[in-house]
Amino acid sequence: TARALAEQKRITLLIAPVDSAGRVDPAWIGSHLNSRTILVSVMWINNEIGTVQDIAKISEVIGNFRKESKKESTPYPLFHTDAVQAFQYSPVDVSLVSVDLLTLAGHKIYAPKGVGLLYVRNGTPLTTQTAGGGQERGLRSGTESVPLALALSLAMERAAKLRAKESARLRTLHGAFVKLIKSRIKNTRIISSAAHGSPHIISVLIDHISADELLFLLDEAGIAASLGSACTTGKLEPSRVLSAMGINEDSAPLRLSMGRETRMSDIRTAVSALTGISAKFLK
Amino acid sequence: TARALAEQKRITLLIAPVDSAGRVDPAWIGSHLNSRTILVSVMWINNEIGTVQDIAKISEVIGNFRKESKKESTPYPLFHTDAVQAFQYSPVDVSLVSVDLLTLAGHKIYAPKGVGLLYVRNGTPLTTQTAGGGQERGLRSGTESVPLALALSLAMERAAKLRAKESARLRTLHGAFVKLIKSRIKNTRIISSAAHGSPHIISVLIDHISADELLFLLDEAGIAASLGSACTTGKLEPSRVLSAMGINEDSAPLRLSMGRETRMSDIRTAVSALTGISAKFLK
Repeated sequence: TARALAEQKRITLLIAPVDSAGRVDPAWIGSHLNSRTILVSVMWINNEIGTVQDIAKISEVIGNFRKESKKESTPYPLFHTDAVQAFQYSPVDVSLVSVDLLTLAGHKIYAPKGVGLLYVRNGTPLTTQTAGGGQERGLRSGTESVPLALALSLAMERAAKLRAKESARLRTLHGAFVKLIKSRIKNTRIISSAAHGSPHIISVLIDHISADELLFLLDEAGIAASLGSACTTGKLEPSRVLSAMGINEDSAPLRLSMGRETRMSDIRTAVSALTGISAKFLK
Repeated sequence: TARALAEQKRITLLIAPVDSAGRVDPAWIGSHLNSRTILVSVMWINNEIGTVQDIAKISEVIGNFRKESKKESTPYPLFHTDAVQAFQYSPVDVSLVSVDLLTLAGHKIYAPKGVGLLYVRNGTPLTTQTAGGGQERGLRSGTESVPLALALSLAMERAAKLRAKESARLRTLHGAFVKLIKSRIKNTRIISSAAHGSPHIISVLIDHISADELLFLLDEAGIAASLGSACTTGKLEPSRVLSAMGINEDSAPLRLSMGRETRMSDIRTAVSALTGISAKFLK
């Protein structure tokens, strides 16, 4: 959306760089805020490699800028975060971290597809994208799906309850995968971090294997993996995030995501499949 | 949406008048088209009083204008119809009636809430309202809900299959209601037409009863009725449609909608409740 608005010359878009671990530097954001900045948007956890961003620190930087700026009455720049990857594994709590807008999609946290959430802090100026009947206090016209909203609410309750336990469990599986894959395949680079990243995303780079062939062979082995973001359908373009991290585009930055049904046996299956494919390529 | 764009001075909006039966005159539309007209939008069946619009004739008028205009290469004005009230009872078929855009909401035809349909004729220029991942060929970014889409598809199949039978059945119930209510309550004016309107909407005007009190008393009697359009939540503003038809705003233009589960016993219950309420007021 930001890119589309920038192409229409309606906004100026600045994309924050990331370091080798995929992190946005809060200080960089602070030094690029000015009186015309209307919005800062940072994903809480990156969906490609699981990097956890320092949302608390970024919100603090923005809060300080607001206080120092002379226009104290305006709430700009607004701070938005996409918390969909974070909700199950990080302490996503708008009473602890000062965000103005927070988005979440239901289907990533075991609610049905077709429902999402927009948190809006009191006093945040907002206009509608969908005019008409005036539902949701004029913000989103259309007949609300109460069943879907209830499903999302229940999914959120459950995810919050399972957060600590599932995080620990997946962290163990993530560590086991890393240990196994490193012992089996040479030239393997682990992009995701079990310690500092989100536990559920394994991002691994295996040299000398073409990306589309790897996906095809994994699919044959019954493993659903992806390259980069699943949100950009059908594209095999180089990932903006990985490019920003300085990762060679010819390699295969593979994403394996884990969830509530992932067990140690699945980790072993994935490692075996990757080992077999890798051996075939290195022949 | 049109009103919002007009308020932003981005378009000029012209609202077609309706006759005493709530009908838009195709000739009026024809005489108001000009080289700057980009869109004509007419509901197939009005949601407040069930008036069936002559969509075929309107599409013909627009088609003729396009042929006669010198800009034959452009597809303007586009013709859009909201067919949600019509789909179950009218022959909604884009191979028979030439519309460029047709919309439908699932929950009005027994699909779940949260899914809708936009039909786009090949070659119709369209931009996106939701940029991002580029799903739906760039027209609607976001993860598609396949279950909801399938549910809508099945609901449409079923509605099409039941169309003739349900229309005839509801027409009989509509006629029975009119006959009963007229015999019981004086000064009753039937706005909807069993013959020319959609069979499922009963619109009735009972003098000397205040609108909100009527709804309250009907609700107490277990009858869910509405005044005007349900899409404009919580408002008791005078209906644009009824105003256009010259109906006194102080009266209670009551809408009773029927569906697949409505039986003759429900009609009798509604008439009895209205009779009781009416008697109380006329004391």
